Amino acid sequence: MGDTHLDRAVRLDRADRLAGYRDRFVIADPALVYLDGNSLGRLPVATRDRLRAVVDTWGTELIGGWDRWIEVNRAAGDVLAGIVGAAAGEVILADSTSVNLYKLACAALAARPGRTVIVTDDDNFPTDRYVLAGIAADRGLTLRMVGTDPDRGIDPAAVTAALDGDVALLCLSHVSYRSGAVADLPALTAAAHEVGALVLWDLCHSAGAVPVGLAAAGADLAVGCTYKYLNGGPGAPAFLYVRADLQTVVRQPIWGWFGQSGQFAMGPSYDPLPDIRRFLVGTPPVLAAYAALEGARLTAEAGVEAIAAKGRALTGYAVDLVDAWLAPLGFRLASPRDPCRRGAHVTLHHPQAWQVCQALKAAGVIPDFRAPDRLRLGMAPLYTRFVDVHSGLSRLRDVVGAGAHEPYPSVPAGIT
Amino acid sequence: MGDTHLDRAVRLDRADRLAGYRDRFVIADPALVYLDGNSLGRLPVATRDRLRAVVDTWGTELIGGWDRWIEVNRAAGDVLAGIVGAAAGEVILADSTSVNLYKLACAALAARPGRTVIVTDDDNFPTDRYVLAGIAADRGLTLRMVGTDPDRGIDPAAVTAALDGDVALLCLSHVSYRSGAVADLPALTAAAHEVGALVLWDLCHSAGAVPVGLAAAGADLAVGCTYKYLNGGPGAPAFLYVRADLQTVVRQPIWGWFGQSGQFAMGPSYDPLPDIRRFLVGTPPVLAAYAALEGARLTAEAGVEAIAAKGRALTGYAVDLVDAWLAPLGFRLASPRDPCRRGAHVTLHHPQAWQVCQALKAAGVIPDFRAPDRLRLGMAPLYTRFVDVHSGLSRLRDVVGAGAHEPYPSVPAGIT
Repeated sequence: MGDTHLDRAVRLDRADRLAGYRDRFVIADPALVYLDGNSLGRLPVATRDRLRAVVDTWGTELIGGWDRWIEVNRAAGDVLAGIVGAAAGEVILADSTSVNLYKLACAALAARPGRTVIVTDDDNFPTDRYVLAGIAADRGLTLRMVGTDPDRGIDPAAVTAALDGDVALLCLSHVSYRSGAVADLPALTAAAHEVGALVLWDLCHSAGAVPVGLAAAGADLAVGCTYKYLNGGPGAPAFLYVRADLQTVVRQPIWGWFGQSGQFAMGPSYDPLPDIRRFLVGTPPVLAAYAALEGARLTAEAGVEAIAAKGRALTGYAVDLVDAWLAPLGFRLASPRDPCRRGAHVTLHHPQAWQVCQALKAAGVIPDFRAPDRLRLGMAPLYTRFVDVHSGLSRLRDVVGAGAHEPYPSVPAGIT
Repeated sequence: MGDTHLDRAVRLDRADRLAGYRDRFVIADPALVYLDGNSLGRLPVATRDRLRAVVDTWGTELIGGWDRWIEVNRAAGDVLAGIVGAAAGEVILADSTSVNLYKLACAALAARPGRTVIVTDDDNFPTDRYVLAGIAADRGLTLRMVGTDPDRGIDPAAVTAALDGDVALLCLSHVSYRSGAVADLPALTAAAHEVGALVLWDLCHSAGAVPVGLAAAGADLAVGCTYKYLNGGPGAPAFLYVRADLQTVVRQPIWGWFGQSGQFAMGPSYDPLPDIRRFLVGTPPVLAAYAALEGARLTAEAGVEAIAAKGRALTGYAVDLVDAWLAPLGFRLASPRDPCRRGAHVTLHHPQAWQVCQALKAAGVIPDFRAPDRLRLGMAPLYTRFVDVHSGLSRLRDVVGAGAHEPYPSVPAGIT
């Protein structure tokens, strides 16, 4: 059990090579402890400035702004490629994660004709499960669900047991949205390839938090959002990855004009571009795309390895405080204990997690609730300090120790 | 042939009830004649202010901002519903036009099982033709193309002749992107219904320019963009319409979490909301969505009938000047002469349209080029004055009269 004195947090912050990045974000209320960067990242100062500039460009250059805007999806994609361990030209900003998941899952199925099974796990993020279920229903395919312990993350043996020659596609999240558990991306990619299936990774909770290493693992396809650890803003456009050699092999189902060769020739038939842009569909939301670009740049500048190292240190420190302060109050760790198996958030079980969440917000700490009994604490390494973890968890201890959560009403219907 | 003196334009501007709306937009360069609002509308002052406020909310309220942001798609949809002649709850802001077209076309096909034909016209906007071709290819259906004269617009008799009991879906644009010709939406909707087909209208070039009257016509489905006459900003999110009684009958193929009942319960299976929100997919781009909302509000405030009346007057005035000044210089009208059959843009043929377009930009007038030989002149009624039309067309006359376009290189490969 570690040292719980504030001094330790102060020492860790002093030694933190990324400490300066906090000043790159708008910190409107310095007293607020924000532990939900895994839901919505903070506003970078550069993004605020960039958005003003893009709006001004719209006002002054009007349609002429498109001479530059047309490049934003690819420019952001190239920055994101570096963050997820891919090469420039393998990633592009586009649509939402859900739409991208649909496009790439359909593309994978078309590339494996005759195979009738999609494999995912029952703890995968809801939109992933729903999108895959919709595709399976539409095409008369089987969606095979692997059972996953929501506190421990994906069991590679269970996934491997679900893979056979009928499987067209394995679709999994790299980091679990509930536990923060990291899946073994290289081993699971290899297992899918072993049976001739393609693999599609959801990187929403890992991009910008842990190294992904798509190229090193030979991963086929991936999607992810930019509004969590990448600080791209609320609902910022998502990204998708298609390994270079697959780009002209697989074909996505939504044949939009932004994927067309000679887009402005407006010719009679669809002839997709021979590169990652063929996975674009319609006109991109330029304002939101520039916010995503600026956010990604900040992560790329800091470096994913340094971010991940700090993430392990922050979550490890949090686990020490949980053990010392919170376990005696009825909290139980709902994340892997091994720091190398965690993303940048730590989840706790508590029978009154909803009420605790409300009381904690009232005490100036923003956590996140996940049904039915989980409190998620996100520690975004670019701006979360060790003193924030100390402050957040000591307030949590004080709130629950004093029973300040008890008066709050229980979790509303529709959330459980 | 009308009066070509500037006095006439000045008189028309003085009598214009919408004249005050020009001040609601950022006019960075008062000398610039902007005739491309049909590609990208101008920046409303309210939008610039709103975007700063939304960015501030992100910075200060962080995840708490979603308590309000979650409503933006529906709030914008209700404003847009009034603009296209639908009821509140029948329209929602979502994704891009292309993605929405895909979703609703697939939904229509699923609602007409056994029918094997999609009908559109060969002059429809490229992304519409491509998206439909992709769906047809994927599902082994026939895409039946009706021939359309690109200067005159859709021939109702030709469309009707293409409709039979095999047709699941008729998909057309209300206003042609090239000629600006208005299709007879009520008659064509009725013709589709006559054979038991559903109809899907693309309103990109009509929403905010002419009355659409979806409900009055009993139209089934529609999509449209918000970045042209609705001034929503570059790549602003699109909208979709599903008639109220169809909303729980048709089902779209991309089962994302924003369409889910009890989204944050994150339950095991997809159970779509019983209203227009079931046509949402992923997390909406909040910044871009608020820009779309503000733009739509301005149009709703001014009123579509008043806007359309001014649009007919502006384009009618432009046609007078074309007849007087430009016909002798080799220009030929590529839009309907009847003002009631035009949207808010006028298109001209010229054998050197590309070069003319470049020379005109150099002369401070922004038109738009469409392959192979068309110059499009958009007259957005909320901010285009009659004196702008006079100034733009007189500069066009002077440029071509002096041969100032001749030195420009011919149209680059990739555009023809």
